[in-house]
Amino acid sequence: MKKDAFVGVFDSGIGGLTVLREIMRQAPREKTVYFGDTARLPYGSKSQDTILRYVRQIMRFMETKEVKAIVMACNTASAYTLDIIEQEIGVPIIGVVKPGAKTAAGSTVNGRIGVIATDGTINSGLYTKFIQSINPELQVFGKACPLFVPLVEEGLLHDFVTEEIARRYLADLQKQDIDTLILGCTHYPLLRSLIGQIMGPEVQLVNPAYETAIALKCLLAENDLQAPGQEVVDHEFYVSDGAEKFKIFANSILPYDVETTHVINIEGY
Amino acid sequence: MKKDAFVGVFDSGIGGLTVLREIMRQAPREKTVYFGDTARLPYGSKSQDTILRYVRQIMRFMETKEVKAIVMACNTASAYTLDIIEQEIGVPIIGVVKPGAKTAAGSTVNGRIGVIATDGTINSGLYTKFIQSINPELQVFGKACPLFVPLVEEGLLHDFVTEEIARRYLADLQKQDIDTLILGCTHYPLLRSLIGQIMGPEVQLVNPAYETAIALKCLLAENDLQAPGQEVVDHEFYVSDGAEKFKIFANSILPYDVETTHVINIEGY
Repeated sequence: MKKDAFVGVFDSGIGGLTVLREIMRQAPREKTVYFGDTARLPYGSKSQDTILRYVRQIMRFMETKEVKAIVMACNTASAYTLDIIEQEIGVPIIGVVKPGAKTAAGSTVNGRIGVIATDGTINSGLYTKFIQSINPELQVFGKACPLFVPLVEEGLLHDFVTEEIARRYLADLQKQDIDTLILGCTHYPLLRSLIGQIMGPEVQLVNPAYETAIALKCLLAENDLQAPGQEVVDHEFYVSDGAEKFKIFANSILPYDVETTHVINIEGY
Repeated sequence: MKKDAFVGVFDSGIGGLTVLREIMRQAPREKTVYFGDTARLPYGSKSQDTILRYVRQIMRFMETKEVKAIVMACNTASAYTLDIIEQEIGVPIIGVVKPGAKTAAGSTVNGRIGVIATDGTINSGLYTKFIQSINPELQVFGKACPLFVPLVEEGLLHDFVTEEIARRYLADLQKQDIDTLILGCTHYPLLRSLIGQIMGPEVQLVNPAYETAIALKCLLAENDLQAPGQEVVDHEFYVSDGAEKFKIFANSILPYDVETTHVINIEGY
């Protein structure tokens, strides 16, 4: 395995760019190849069998790029497929669920942790499983928030409709006296200030994107795979649909000038 | 071609069931096979190339069912692919766009027609093209309403959030003095009463599902393909993901007891 190979990062669409952004900030020497499955998004409402088939195709694409490590920058994919996929491939791989779960378990004081995510991630119960494997006495309260992704994608980040929907989704968690809340979908950090305002300053928000970038650095160090100092750090972008729309969004959030986004037929992998 | 063969009906997901419901009501002797592409929904935000690839796979599935005619019960698919697909297949096919456009063109008095639909359908400009091919003097005003589908799927049919979003989306059309409004996405008839209330009684709402069922009956008659009287009328249901969830929704809106929904891997066709 070459130290100067790409790190592969993927998501169902644009959400994983919040993870890529953290990787670029925290591991600026790493070259990355990003894939967004925009032809089949969203993943959050689909079944484990379907997501597993999609992720296996993405793994075959990543093989062609000879990546040295892979980041599943998608909570649903991580929740449903990471355990299976890590047995099937020959490179180190991490998801976003474990790093977020670990941080939440370490930072709660009263032992009551909330998780907001897609239907798929909540139904998988994986955040609860990971958190309780660290400390079985911790209590985890999950809440699916299916409208958050379309509201973010419609650009309604600061809008009373989004606030109203957020108040409804978060009402149950407010009653549970949680002191830590995991933003368990890669779109949700874009609603961070609103969620923080509703939950109040006593609730700590955990952004798995940040924790995942740290976990990636550890993974590369453990496997002696850290990139050497490179003059030019390349980042490549692939999607299964809508390259232009993706590029505009990527340029709006990444500390990097995305010039080209390639469309691939992921079903062919 | 056998008269007692199935009529194929498909959509990206559950929306097309509003069309199937009208077919069951208006052509109760016809056997149908329905496919919902729930593993890859929604279609509305995806590109023409991607939708065309998906529809070609669905056509190959419909071939295996030896259907005698096909209804594209999806506005985005109809807008982007019908002209191409009807050259490629050997059975009569109709979409939902032409029947809705024809009815709107025939019923407007002041010549000003509104269309609400997904991004894909609005961007295709196809409603405008069809309406103006009937009468070039008619004016068409389109408005994409991307949050309507997730709001319907979240069950917020009678909710002030949906009303607020609808008021925003419809505000431009209200200023245009339209007298006819096409509900150009198969989910939208489920918001019919709210849309009617906002637009007022002077605006006539056109539901392409209703018009499409009439068009199907004409198509079968023209091709001498009407079903003979049958004791038992079969309806088969296929999806690419989430059979159980689909079945529950189908049973809530169809005048038919859906007992089994089959999952197929549509990418393999």
